[in-house]
Amino acid sequence: MNTTATTVPTDAAQADAGSPRAATADPSLPVVGCDGDAPQQPSGMPTHKYLPFHEQIRVELPDRTWPDTRITRAPRWCAVDLRDGNQALIDPMNHERKLRMFELLVRMGYKEIEVGFPAASQTDFDLVRALIEEDRIPEDVSIQVLTQSREHLIERTYEAISGAHRAVVHLYNSTSIVQRDVVFRSDEDGVLDIAVQGALLCKKYEETVPDTQVTYQYSPESFTGTELEYAVCVCNAVADVFRPTPEHKMIVNLPATVEMATPNVYADSIEWMSRHLVPREGIVLSLHPHNDRGSGVAAAELGYMAGADRIEGCLFGNGERTGNVDLVTLGLNLFSQGVDPQIDFTDLDEVRRTVEHCNQMRVPERVPYGGDLVFTAFSGSHQDAINKGLDRMRSDAEAAGKQVDDLVWRVPYLPIDPRDIGRSYEAVIRVNSQSGKGGMAYLLRTEHGLDLPRRLQIEFSGIVQNITDSEGGEVSAAALWDSFSDEYLPAQDPARTWGRFGFHGVHQESAGEGSDRIAVELRVDDHEETVEGYGNGPLDGFVKALAGQGVQLRILDYAEHALTEGDDSLAASYIECEIGERIFWGVGVDGSITRASLQAIVSALNRAERSKH
Amino acid sequence: MNTTATTVPTDAAQADAGSPRAATADPSLPVVGCDGDAPQQPSGMPTHKYLPFHEQIRVELPDRTWPDTRITRAPRWCAVDLRDGNQALIDPMNHERKLRMFELLVRMGYKEIEVGFPAASQTDFDLVRALIEEDRIPEDVSIQVLTQSREHLIERTYEAISGAHRAVVHLYNSTSIVQRDVVFRSDEDGVLDIAVQGALLCKKYEETVPDTQVTYQYSPESFTGTELEYAVCVCNAVADVFRPTPEHKMIVNLPATVEMATPNVYADSIEWMSRHLVPREGIVLSLHPHNDRGSGVAAAELGYMAGADRIEGCLFGNGERTGNVDLVTLGLNLFSQGVDPQIDFTDLDEVRRTVEHCNQMRVPERVPYGGDLVFTAFSGSHQDAINKGLDRMRSDAEAAGKQVDDLVWRVPYLPIDPRDIGRSYEAVIRVNSQSGKGGMAYLLRTEHGLDLPRRLQIEFSGIVQNITDSEGGEVSAAALWDSFSDEYLPAQDPARTWGRFGFHGVHQESAGEGSDRIAVELRVDDHEETVEGYGNGPLDGFVKALAGQGVQLRILDYAEHALTEGDDSLAASYIECEIGERIFWGVGVDGSITRASLQAIVSALNRAERSKH
Repeated sequence: MNTTATTVPTDAAQADAGSPRAATADPSLPVVGCDGDAPQQPSGMPTHKYLPFHEQIRVELPDRTWPDTRITRAPRWCAVDLRDGNQALIDPMNHERKLRMFELLVRMGYKEIEVGFPAASQTDFDLVRALIEEDRIPEDVSIQVLTQSREHLIERTYEAISGAHRAVVHLYNSTSIVQRDVVFRSDEDGVLDIAVQGALLCKKYEETVPDTQVTYQYSPESFTGTELEYAVCVCNAVADVFRPTPEHKMIVNLPATVEMATPNVYADSIEWMSRHLVPREGIVLSLHPHNDRGSGVAAAELGYMAGADRIEGCLFGNGERTGNVDLVTLGLNLFSQGVDPQIDFTDLDEVRRTVEHCNQMRVPERVPYGGDLVFTAFSGSHQDAINKGLDRMRSDAEAAGKQVDDLVWRVPYLPIDPRDIGRSYEAVIRVNSQSGKGGMAYLLRTEHGLDLPRRLQIEFSGIVQNITDSEGGEVSAAALWDSFSDEYLPAQDPARTWGRFGFHGVHQESAGEGSDRIAVELRVDDHEETVEGYGNGPLDGFVKALAGQGVQLRILDYAEHALTEGDDSLAASYIECEIGERIFWGVGVDGSITRASLQAIVSALNRAERSKH
Repeated sequence: MNTTATTVPTDAAQADAGSPRAATADPSLPVVGCDGDAPQQPSGMPTHKYLPFHEQIRVELPDRTWPDTRITRAPRWCAVDLRDGNQALIDPMNHERKLRMFELLVRMGYKEIEVGFPAASQTDFDLVRALIEEDRIPEDVSIQVLTQSREHLIERTYEAISGAHRAVVHLYNSTSIVQRDVVFRSDEDGVLDIAVQGALLCKKYEETVPDTQVTYQYSPESFTGTELEYAVCVCNAVADVFRPTPEHKMIVNLPATVEMATPNVYADSIEWMSRHLVPREGIVLSLHPHNDRGSGVAAAELGYMAGADRIEGCLFGNGERTGNVDLVTLGLNLFSQGVDPQIDFTDLDEVRRTVEHCNQMRVPERVPYGGDLVFTAFSGSHQDAINKGLDRMRSDAEAAGKQVDDLVWRVPYLPIDPRDIGRSYEAVIRVNSQSGKGGMAYLLRTEHGLDLPRRLQIEFSGIVQNITDSEGGEVSAAALWDSFSDEYLPAQDPARTWGRFGFHGVHQESAGEGSDRIAVELRVDDHEETVEGYGNGPLDGFVKALAGQGVQLRILDYAEHALTEGDDSLAASYIECEIGERIFWGVGVDGSITRASLQAIVSALNRAERSKH
């Protein structure tokens, strides 16, 4: 055995050209790197433009506890589809689409729904007024409205929510190093003051909505780019204005406005904040991950393990740029662990259709749980394993006298039962050139009730593979059935009949002493013929009769079953025959098991004839 | 302040109906749950069907070290687009598309490329032969081929690679509890034997390819569903056959064939394996995450921190079901931290086009780094911050006498500079009803060289917001320009001319003592008129002349600049006027600064007239 590329000593070159950080990283921390025996080369990309996260923000928590925790309960959810989601659409929702989205979120079970930034957009304002004035908000649902820390915006925000039973007023200002410097051109005290003044203004205008139960939420926006010490200082100063208690909590929301590091770092920062927020028992600690590094879901889950109570996100991960964290994935990840998401995902396709209508964007094929292809196996070995897993579930249930749904789900490659979210099994197995016998066997069983013996599966998969290899593309269930019936069941469709032999009828009589006389009416080429033979049953008799015609055929294996789907009065017969030097399976389907078997032999005979050409 | 839903005591109900796990979880571990003050209700979904991961597989590593590590070097990459990726396509690649993909991967810098499962598919076999016989594999690139542990497949695999300079023979068999039970119907010893026999057969057939440097890779497929003790036992038994050394390593690849838990658990399992693999110094520890829980990227990064050396994945996360881990996101996540990915992503749009052609699937809009919308800001506050960040980069560079590209990138909301991966800034700012002044200002500056004063930005954004609020949808840069020129530059386009006044010309002469006489030729309604006035400059003189016509106009603010783009001989003039009780900005563009200014006043006058209707 030889390794790759032992002749290319690129280790030193990589250290020079690859990572300028290696030299400057904190030497007390272990570093991770490859062992240098891969011949990868420097890319020449301008890495000098970027600082590693730990050189921007210090997050250190060696006594972290979150990696030893487990999630056993759903967080408090807040859906921000109408706000973060809507602002990121090429074609933002009109009023009708906003109402559809709101109603969907309510129906699914979300109890906190951010409905807009009413002071910044007339359409958002109009939506909030319509929800309130048309009495569309259920008693136990809170609408949430976003506002910046400016008096005319705050005043307008309270105008918007006037008359609501309950509302979350969500005050935010950006606190990150870069935004303080570039956007606000202000120092730490100045930005802290923006937050505190905003909180004071909220308290002031709260008096204008005496009939509304107001909960406060504060977000140090761009939290991930903010020094932790400063972030907690601002949050605590705001809490000092709102004075939350365990009975009247406020929400502190810590957005990964831009995802800037691996998700364990976000979790560390959440655990650190959770330890330093005062009064912690009066605070609902909320997460708001985005997905710039493709780890929004992980950030939410690890952050939740790190002490958060609540998660904000959007259905199917809509949202600015790479999107907000995906509430569907988070919810169904819980479900897959036996934890109730407290959100109803039982008709996920309907959820998806509504979201696609509202957002005017397609949910991609590979989005977890909801994508078109996420329960689909094209690979033969995967299909085979899934089939075996489903079979085992059925037989285990039967043995235990239970329903399949009473058992613990354990099917290879399917993290959850697609039916639990309203999917059928039809889309699970799809056949292309990468599929083996399993997929075809599955489709023939589920669509046509045929339970092919294993060696017949192998024979037929070779036939299908020839088609997919030469023509490419997916083979639909219908095309698969065409191939199968053309190959094995030529007599079923007169228009497509092929083969030397046609089976027309059989007469059978007992000749005593275990011997039957059998007469089979055949079409041979273009004339009718009746062949006769004696044997210990119709098959044996037919084989003897054929031998009398000079056809040498030996039966190697035999299987028969009633069709489990479709017409229950039919039987399917599969017979493996040696004809000449070669092996051919034949298949027959008929109301009579005798006729089905004889047809199967005729099927094998015809295939043997065809193979000569 | 009131909290939401203090009247709904669902805590107890949730514990009963929500999580059957709470009672059975290991009581020594802290659990995570919400505080019960959200009124979420049980969903009724069949959570009883699912076991939490820790009740299936025991992964415990309280002395884990990975959360304290940092990534400072690229891993060894292996691209499996032609194998895992291809098998998951509705329309698998034909030969031409496979060659395109292979060439793309080579060009980007991948040195290990899994090219197929040649013993299972004729098209895969044909590809491998073509790559070798047509000499398409660069000297420093290893092709990798997958095989199951069966003699006829292994034999055929070596037929496929015969003549290659170097190849990775990738042997796998599934080891998970479920697959042992359901698929193999075999015990631990039986499945271990499958692996060892496969390794022995590989060694046997290696003799048939004396001219090929063979590296071995073993995957305990469905590793995440396998007990760690058993997985390491199988891997070590296989290593005992291949006898790797630091000079001649083998690859042990640990697939998250199905992602089954949060990514920290995968990292724990990788660190555990790394400690127990023998001989560790002879092994390249490889990761192969899938994305069923949407955390494939996190699993790869945390697993790499936990001691792995190598990562297998696909471009843009193609692959069975939810996909393999996305190599683009992993690579550019490194880049964003100043770590060279050792892969060239400088023309990511071209990469994307090729991948879309080969896979016949679209890369979704929000896929990190590569998606259409991932650098786009629709939100006004985001646009504003991005503009300020870009401006600051320019001014900082100027002040330091450097190029912008010599500075550390720090622009709000943009994790990397889009230009580093071949994107322009054009797609960064897009305008819809959620946009404020920032987006419009940005587009007018970059597309038309106009640098609007801040109060003019606010005025114009109100005009655009009326359009987006009433018509919905995105406002293209062209439509924005139409709105702007219709509103402010009516005289530019004779066909669209509107307004009482048209500016035709100006005559100016010094009248001595700081006083100029100015005569402006105007169209007023449908007749020509010349107005005259005296002032300490043309603007003052024009204002006085207008006063003589009964038009009361006062200039409040004034700004002018040369156009930075387009025709450099033009100047743009912006004048804020009080006309009657109201404020109107006017804009003029002309080769003469005098004419531009006078046009701006006419523009404001006409807007005032229009506002009366």
